[in-house]
Amino acid sequence: MKTVGTLLFPGFELLDVFGPLEMFGAPTEDFSLEMVAEESGPVASRQGSKAIADISLTDAEPYDILLIPGGLGVRTEVGNTTLIDWLRRHAEASKIVATVCTGTALLARTGLLNGRKATTNKAAFRWVMGQGPAVRWQPRARWVVDDKYYTSSGVSAGMDMALALIANLNGDDKAQQVATFTEYRWHSDANDDPFFHHYDLGDVAQ
Amino acid sequence: MKTVGTLLFPGFELLDVFGPLEMFGAPTEDFSLEMVAEESGPVASRQGSKAIADISLTDAEPYDILLIPGGLGVRTEVGNTTLIDWLRRHAEASKIVATVCTGTALLARTGLLNGRKATTNKAAFRWVMGQGPAVRWQPRARWVVDDKYYTSSGVSAGMDMALALIANLNGDDKAQQVATFTEYRWHSDANDDPFFHHYDLGDVAQ
Repeated sequence: MKTVGTLLFPGFELLDVFGPLEMFGAPTEDFSLEMVAEESGPVASRQGSKAIADISLTDAEPYDILLIPGGLGVRTEVGNTTLIDWLRRHAEASKIVATVCTGTALLARTGLLNGRKATTNKAAFRWVMGQGPAVRWQPRARWVVDDKYYTSSGVSAGMDMALALIANLNGDDKAQQVATFTEYRWHSDANDDPFFHHYDLGDVAQ
Repeated sequence: MKTVGTLLFPGFELLDVFGPLEMFGAPTEDFSLEMVAEESGPVASRQGSKAIADISLTDAEPYDILLIPGGLGVRTEVGNTTLIDWLRRHAEASKIVATVCTGTALLARTGLLNGRKATTNKAAFRWVMGQGPAVRWQPRARWVVDDKYYTSSGVSAGMDMALALIANLNGDDKAQQVATFTEYRWHSDANDDPFFHHYDLGDVAQ
């Protein structure tokens, strides 16, 4: 069973966390879930609803999959050197690192995405780019895979990325099984991005 | 600002709760969120990840929208008379009641759906039917609206239903704004149910 560690911080976006965890936590029982934050205990989301971190940063081991959500709190956390230093070490030590939405900004701040292709939330795209000028930003993508780094577009894109990750690790049939269990219409083409045209990001496209 | 009260119980399904809450909690700021359980404090989901109930059943006021998730825990909670009695009173007193997945079984147990059209999770459809034999069950539906009762199909259908509810309350534009913010491909046709054919439920259809 593979481990999925999800980073929580104040102001995380609910669906960035629980969309992917629904997919990883489907009853196919291929993944065990843990939530990690600076301190274990309650962490308030951007929406106000609280989740519980099972473990603190200092006690967490590297994961098979390290999941980094976005949310308004990212604006604060990009300046949190304790968190970014932990993220650098744990992202290097974890087998796969997956970000949702502006969570990519946190990973970009570690420098680990430099020279790599990555994407993020459309509405905050230019701000996130500023957090990692050496990243090869891809504004027209539902999600992007570069080596062990999976980065996804805004909020809901995390669910499509999680299913792609399950497909890559355990096969398409397993991902389809999860999508059927969750009655989720899986959009399995990473390049099919219906939200690109909502924003003026043509000059960013490479 | 309208209030959304979400019922938590041990073994709730993560996305049943946090999919709709992502939509209601979008930064359009039209809804305030509260989570309610038998006791306030941590409640473990079916997947293991824990959320925090802000308030206990005894302290909760009726809501503008009462949201009832499903999950494996429903199998126990249908026999929890304290919960079902609370649900009957609060569902009657709340302006709108919305269920996701097998959450419909809990509402069916109150008797409030008798004679009404409703739907639920496909995989557990026949079991849920047994919890409310006088309900007019609709197996081919993404979600169903009957008066103030919104019931949805499995897990992910809750997000489509939540957007439909936002559209009905605040207009299509607002719902579209939320879908764009969350980069969610909203499937806005309640009758377009791609999962019906995965299950042998033809004899149930009316």
